[in-house]
Amino acid sequence: MSADYYCGDIEFFPGIGRIPFEGIGSDNPLAFKHYDADKRVGDRTMREHLRFAVCYWHTFLGAGADPFGVGTRLFPWDKAASPMDAAALRMDAAFEMFTKLGVPYYCFHDRDMAPAADTVAESERNLSRMVERAARLQKQTGVRLLWGTANLFSHPRYMCGAATNPDFHVLAHAGAQVKAALDATVALGGENYVFWGGREGYSTLLNTDTARELDHMAAFLRAARDYGRSIGFKGRFLIEPKPMEPMKHQYDFDAASVVGFLRQYELDGDFSLNIEANHATLAGHTFAHELQISANAGLLGSIDANRGDMQNGWDTDQFPVDLYDTTTAMLVVLEQGGLAPGGLNFDAKARRESVDMEDLFIGHIGGMDAFARGLEVAHALLTKSRLAADRDARYSSFDAGPGAAFARGEFGLEKLRDFAAAHGEPAPVSGKQERYENLLNQYLLR
Amino acid sequence: MSADYYCGDIEFFPGIGRIPFEGIGSDNPLAFKHYDADKRVGDRTMREHLRFAVCYWHTFLGAGADPFGVGTRLFPWDKAASPMDAAALRMDAAFEMFTKLGVPYYCFHDRDMAPAADTVAESERNLSRMVERAARLQKQTGVRLLWGTANLFSHPRYMCGAATNPDFHVLAHAGAQVKAALDATVALGGENYVFWGGREGYSTLLNTDTARELDHMAAFLRAARDYGRSIGFKGRFLIEPKPMEPMKHQYDFDAASVVGFLRQYELDGDFSLNIEANHATLAGHTFAHELQISANAGLLGSIDANRGDMQNGWDTDQFPVDLYDTTTAMLVVLEQGGLAPGGLNFDAKARRESVDMEDLFIGHIGGMDAFARGLEVAHALLTKSRLAADRDARYSSFDAGPGAAFARGEFGLEKLRDFAAAHGEPAPVSGKQERYENLLNQYLLR
Amino acid sequence: MSADYYCGDIEFFPGIGRIPFEGIGSDNPLAFKHYDADKRVGDRTMREHLRFAVCYWHTFLGAGADPFGVGTRLFPWDKAASPMDAAALRMDAAFEMFTKLGVPYYCFHDRDMAPAADTVAESERNLSRMVERAARLQKQTGVRLLWGTANLFSHPRYMCGAATNPDFHVLAHAGAQVKAALDATVALGGENYVFWGGREGYSTLLNTDTARELDHMAAFLRAARDYGRSIGFKGRFLIEPKPMEPMKHQYDFDAASVVGFLRQYELDGDFSLNIEANHATLAGHTFAHELQISANAGLLGSIDANRGDMQNGWDTDQFPVDLYDTTTAMLVVLEQGGLAPGGLNFDAKARRESVDMEDLFIGHIGGMDAFARGLEVAHALLTKSRLAADRDARYSSFDAGPGAAFARGEFGLEKLRDFAAAHGEPAPVSGKQERYENLLNQYLLR
Amino acid sequence: MSADYYCGDIEFFPGIGRIPFEGIGSDNPLAFKHYDADKRVGDRTMREHLRFAVCYWHTFLGAGADPFGVGTRLFPWDKAASPMDAAALRMDAAFEMFTKLGVPYYCFHDRDMAPAADTVAESERNLSRMVERAARLQKQTGVRLLWGTANLFSHPRYMCGAATNPDFHVLAHAGAQVKAALDATVALGGENYVFWGGREGYSTLLNTDTARELDHMAAFLRAARDYGRSIGFKGRFLIEPKPMEPMKHQYDFDAASVVGFLRQYELDGDFSLNIEANHATLAGHTFAHELQISANAGLLGSIDANRGDMQNGWDTDQFPVDLYDTTTAMLVVLEQGGLAPGGLNFDAKARRESVDMEDLFIGHIGGMDAFARGLEVAHALLTKSRLAADRDARYSSFDAGPGAAFARGEFGLEKLRDFAAAHGEPAPVSGKQERYENLLNQYLLR
Ligand SMILES: [Co+2]
Ligand SMILES: [Co+2]
Ligand SMILES: [Co+2]
Ligand SMILES: [Co+2]
Ligand SMILES: [Co+2]
Ligand SMILES: [Co+2]
Ligand SMILES: [Co+2]
Ligand SMILES: [Co+2]
Repeated sequence: MSADYYCGDIEFFPGIGRIPFEGIGSDNPLAFKHYDADKRVGDRTMREHLRFAVCYWHTFLGAGADPFGVGTRLFPWDKAASPMDAAALRMDAAFEMFTKLGVPYYCFHDRDMAPAADTVAESERNLSRMVERAARLQKQTGVRLLWGTANLFSHPRYMCGAATNPDFHVLAHAGAQVKAALDATVALGGENYVFWGGREGYSTLLNTDTARELDHMAAFLRAARDYGRSIGFKGRFLIEPKPMEPMKHQYDFDAASVVGFLRQYELDGDFSLNIEANHATLAGHTFAHELQISANAGLLGSIDANRGDMQNGWDTDQFPVDLYDTTTAMLVVLEQGGLAPGGLNFDAKARRESVDMEDLFIGHIGGMDAFARGLEVAHALLTKSRLAADRDARYSSFDAGPGAAFARGEFGLEKLRDFAAAHGEPAPVSGKQERYENLLNQYLLR
Repeated sequence: MSADYYCGDIEFFPGIGRIPFEGIGSDNPLAFKHYDADKRVGDRTMREHLRFAVCYWHTFLGAGADPFGVGTRLFPWDKAASPMDAAALRMDAAFEMFTKLGVPYYCFHDRDMAPAADTVAESERNLSRMVERAARLQKQTGVRLLWGTANLFSHPRYMCGAATNPDFHVLAHAGAQVKAALDATVALGGENYVFWGGREGYSTLLNTDTARELDHMAAFLRAARDYGRSIGFKGRFLIEPKPMEPMKHQYDFDAASVVGFLRQYELDGDFSLNIEANHATLAGHTFAHELQISANAGLLGSIDANRGDMQNGWDTDQFPVDLYDTTTAMLVVLEQGGLAPGGLNFDAKARRESVDMEDLFIGHIGGMDAFARGLEVAHALLTKSRLAADRDARYSSFDAGPGAAFARGEFGLEKLRDFAAAHGEPAPVSGKQERYENLLNQYLLR
Repeated sequence: MSADYYCGDIEFFPGIGRIPFEGIGSDNPLAFKHYDADKRVGDRTMREHLRFAVCYWHTFLGAGADPFGVGTRLFPWDKAASPMDAAALRMDAAFEMFTKLGVPYYCFHDRDMAPAADTVAESERNLSRMVERAARLQKQTGVRLLWGTANLFSHPRYMCGAATNPDFHVLAHAGAQVKAALDATVALGGENYVFWGGREGYSTLLNTDTARELDHMAAFLRAARDYGRSIGFKGRFLIEPKPMEPMKHQYDFDAASVVGFLRQYELDGDFSLNIEANHATLAGHTFAHELQISANAGLLGSIDANRGDMQNGWDTDQFPVDLYDTTTAMLVVLEQGGLAPGGLNFDAKARRESVDMEDLFIGHIGGMDAFARGLEVAHALLTKSRLAADRDARYSSFDAGPGAAFARGEFGLEKLRDFAAAHGEPAPVSGKQERYENLLNQYLLR
Repeated sequence: MSADYYCGDIEFFPGIGRIPFEGIGSDNPLAFKHYDADKRVGDRTMREHLRFAVCYWHTFLGAGADPFGVGTRLFPWDKAASPMDAAALRMDAAFEMFTKLGVPYYCFHDRDMAPAADTVAESERNLSRMVERAARLQKQTGVRLLWGTANLFSHPRYMCGAATNPDFHVLAHAGAQVKAALDATVALGGENYVFWGGREGYSTLLNTDTARELDHMAAFLRAARDYGRSIGFKGRFLIEPKPMEPMKHQYDFDAASVVGFLRQYELDGDFSLNIEANHATLAGHTFAHELQISANAGLLGSIDANRGDMQNGWDTDQFPVDLYDTTTAMLVVLEQGGLAPGGLNFDAKARRESVDMEDLFIGHIGGMDAFARGLEVAHALLTKSRLAADRDARYSSFDAGPGAAFARGEFGLEKLRDFAAAHGEPAPVSGKQERYENLLNQYLLR
């Protein structure tokens, strides 16, 4: 590693070095304006708070194909002689980028890292070989694995679902993939393991037994949990909600659905949620809402940091640059005491039209800066502004007396009725929404 | 009761008699084309299957005001000398309409039936007087009460919620109203009691402690349940999900959220769901989806039969005339063995421009015919077509052998892996969505 | 042609013959229930009214890939030795299907019929060779070309638009393709030529000069129009509106946008609109609305008959089986006196999970039956019901007198004021929406 | 006027004085952080750029009613003895607020300023009396009228539209109101006159002749234009697009629809557009998009500055506090050279829960600060950053040579084809969206 980044036999991003912090005055598109990894915000550094990860799939495999056109981005590693050779070069490029960006973590699907083969055993061997290489590169660079997962949606066999496929034979293949992906995650010291239920849902209710499929999904997750624990996985399992796309309806619709599912099947001891901003949007929720619902349940595990388009109904997976989103997200994260062992994984991709290799860096830099600034603003709002105190004061009538008794279940309907009759009409209390909103802008711009 | 409908001192709908069944060939807009109450469909009559109810609020109080204009409909009963006189005339008009339409049930909010007054005690007295009148009219006509409820959203005091209001004093008033509404419901032999969480939610997360508010909501529902049981209410409590409007976000977002909430707070022994079609639409779900999710949990209690506009994002509460909606709804209802003690309540209103009194009848006739035909089509699909058998056959690999073992939790990840490795690639099986869809049209038009 | 369908050297859909009309009582999924081509509805046969076309792209090239997975459908013609061999087999398969379904028309993009090559000239040669084959097959089968078009969105060069690309060099390539596609359309006797502005729009306003791009688009269409007329194209040019996807915003957003654009640039003498149901949905309009807006302008040229999902925000291109959509569409078509020289092109695809070859037939059969029944219902509503007369009567105050004078521009604001002052408050007139809706259901089910 | 604001006999907002500019460091919720009226940005002061107006309706008549509840805000002026007395007090309160906020403009509907009466003549007299009072207060305070308008949607007679009502008698009443509102606007020196087509649209296509209704709308606008010009109105007529609500579909759907309509009926010489942010959202467009489309046509007249909720499908009319919206809006305004004679009218209301009188001020302060900061950021982006130059450079191939010839219409399809064939494949050029987005954040936070 010359300088302070990893570089293999080929430098895949020549002309780009370690991305420096240059501050808000800089006009360098390849420098951080806000993310200063060692800067302390409260009791931790930005690096410790934000726990950034780069995703393997969009960044190193996403060439920009969409339903109306093929990929536009020409990756140098794709010129390799064989899929396994390409996989090796791709991994070198990945670690070069991780270290140039200065992110502490990355995430992957089994099929991102190693190509599928014709048989289960051969696919496993491909993955094992690449895991060995990843382990070596992790050691060499200090970059760590935030989470691993298995791709149970791209292969045609999963067209009607994986764990919820009506055909047990298909489900068995999903099991084989998850087993191997768990093995890989443990081998690489992954801190979490993610399930995104890509095609677990339905296209039409007319051909679907939703109750039976949900039972199968729970059985599958239990099997994964049991196997993971048996091989020494100590991390958290994570479910990533998404309401739709590719299916018309997906079972892991939103945070509330998943929390309910995990509790129903008693999986909440091992499973938490991985909340993606874009998926919140598709479900008709704000990003902050999904985080808050998860945090309320004690199940906010990790974050897929991206954004959708509020007016386009598909998963655009853009880089998160809206400071309102990053600030309100960090409010929830700070109030729950941080995100570890989860992190902020950029499940984001450069636009199809952004074909320069530097665009991959520029996208990540924008996202990292937006979250760094969001962290600062959220921290200031919580520690310097009246936001939290004002909010808590709204509920003070429940802190003691009849309000507290009610909350404890000791003030029934007849007592409530008599209290209301005795005390007459309550005085109106303004919700002050405009004041809270102005406060947020004020701290954002300070 | 001259003829076969009730008529008080004034006939409020002159020129309209008992709505007859005239069949599909009739051109009479004031006749049923499909709803033939005593016709048997399977083991029950249409009346027993459908359990129609008219709602008091839209039908007898909804003059057509919207955010951009005042009411357009001039109700004769509103000319009365005092609010209580108007309430009495309105009730006569209501029972006249119930009997002319031939619906077995109706539903009401406390404030629909009797006006609020300045004090808790006076409001209770108003309601008691009107309940006496309603009891007499029920007896006289045979019309029964499907459910009662309390309006906890129209009064300014509830602007920040009722059970989730940050001010305990407001919550106490909500308790007083629910107590009186439960008393009324029991007095009238109501078969269910509904909670629609009108303003239980938030306008902005910035000023809201969602976790605390949800705890209060659960405490409130427990208090209501305990009081209801203490006065002899044997029916089902129902929660009606709605995702938004009037609030930005409402806690009872959709069926999955409510099912999860009820289980979390151990309320599912007493509470089921009242699914409204329009609210499903607003939540981004189909009507059938919300019904199915509720039925899967054993918690589909009752239905608010209306429709929204798929392209307008507010609660239009139109009459349900889409035969796809009524057919797919009745598929779920028939497969769960019926809706009793719930029913199909028309939480629907004539358009603001539909100012003729007969329009109230025409709207209900359209909805009743659409559900009657939906019932027939659903019954035929389940008893004569291959729909259910084909759907079940898709899952046959889980009926025995390794599939069944997996479903029982006895076929772990390693076994799944070995099964997949041993059996190779599964043969693709078509989902046949187009065939299912064509089948539905075929039975609809037969 | 044995029997009554075309079959080349290979029969690609063995076991499926000419799809018969068997009527509503049939349970055969491979028979028509409503589409009886020679049945007269009013003054024309169903064939003449509906002018069905099969599309080349979804039906013969769409293997089911989506953003989360590769294709699932294995087309036998894709096993050919070279792209041009595959193209020839595909064309045989296409004409086999056209004739088995009994559709009179088809539609194609240049790249559907013949593969692109490395140079402009070679791509042109590929297309010419395939056009010769198509001409022969058209003659042999009697199937005709409803319209041709050029694919200006799949190739990476078009990532920032074709006619609106900021790079003139790219635009020139688009010109080359349109020239060749017009040549092909004329050679095949195509009755129309379509532009769908796939990537003509923007991803972000920040990098886009929308005014300049729109001027370029108009210049491009003029060039195409002039060239087309110069080679003897007598048909109609058509613009197909779509609001978004693949771009965040597309210039041809909806019918009103396109009508305004055509008038602004004085292109409405040669260009009409091709309305796709799914695109209407994405634009927040009903299908009937888009048709009506086009018809009002005298510019409703043709229809892409499919449907979207009202709750999924992308182009699902499902087969049109909603009878409300087909009926209200045919109301507009019948009231404008028919669709010729346009037609009903099934821009629809079987679901990704529908992998059986017969599913392609079943999808089309469902769509053809739904439009045939929609035609019958619309015709009956217009000729036997009071719908049109009631609607026209609502406007009778403008048929003569001051109303007519106003409509002619001869009754100004002061006269209006005096009329209002003199005549006092108008009597309310009900809009009767519920009666119209019930009427539609009544005729649908008769 | 003590101090520097107007105060009538009663001070309606005691404890609130002239809102001072205190800068970003201030914690005073009743001070500006960014809006410093006399600060120069480029060649004008903030006051001159932004031309803020307060709206009469939401601010002084909007008590907070919504479809589910009555008003929550108790306005002191509503306690007056008669509607006309209340109107006088309300006007005093309005000018007190205008001057305390320091806005140069206001806007009104006829019915905001003076109550309707039973006859046309009496309603006119009410309005005249209030116009006299307003004229006096304008003179006394220096506050001016940005625009006037007539409320053609709240009265029941307009339930099926005003200018598009099927009943000429209703249309005549609309004419009477517009005449009087134009008289009032001219009397008060109004700089513009607005039409918001509240109920000009349809609830169902089944009962509507859209073509005829649109002709009537054009005839009505011509009549208004002719009358306005006849009484000396020199300002601009403005159409405010809105896609839906209260109707299912409104004719003035979005900017493109209105631009097309104005051109079709040759009204674009007198009419421009008044773009409301919330209406853009409802139409599926960004605010900046609607502004840009209007500006492209030379028809961006004025702005209704508010915001909607991206996930709630109705007109929430919240105060505009999103800095991305204000910045991208001001980019369009600055690039078109300013907004005069239009302005930024706060068509916004405090939340129903914001019941303190100070909340009306806090809302406006937040909006004014957000636009002031948006102006600064947009100005810096255009004058100091590379944004505009980079954007223009993307189109440089059209500045000369074949590109320019093409744009002039002198480079037809055959020339394009030959150019493409001769020059081979174009080199890909990145759209650099991520770099543009990061640039915006960088200037926002500087
Ligand atoms: Co993700
Ligand atoms: Co995503
Ligand atoms: Co309801
Ligand atoms: Co509703
Ligand atoms: Co199409
Ligand atoms: Co489409
Ligand atoms: Co407005
Ligand atoms: Co608005």
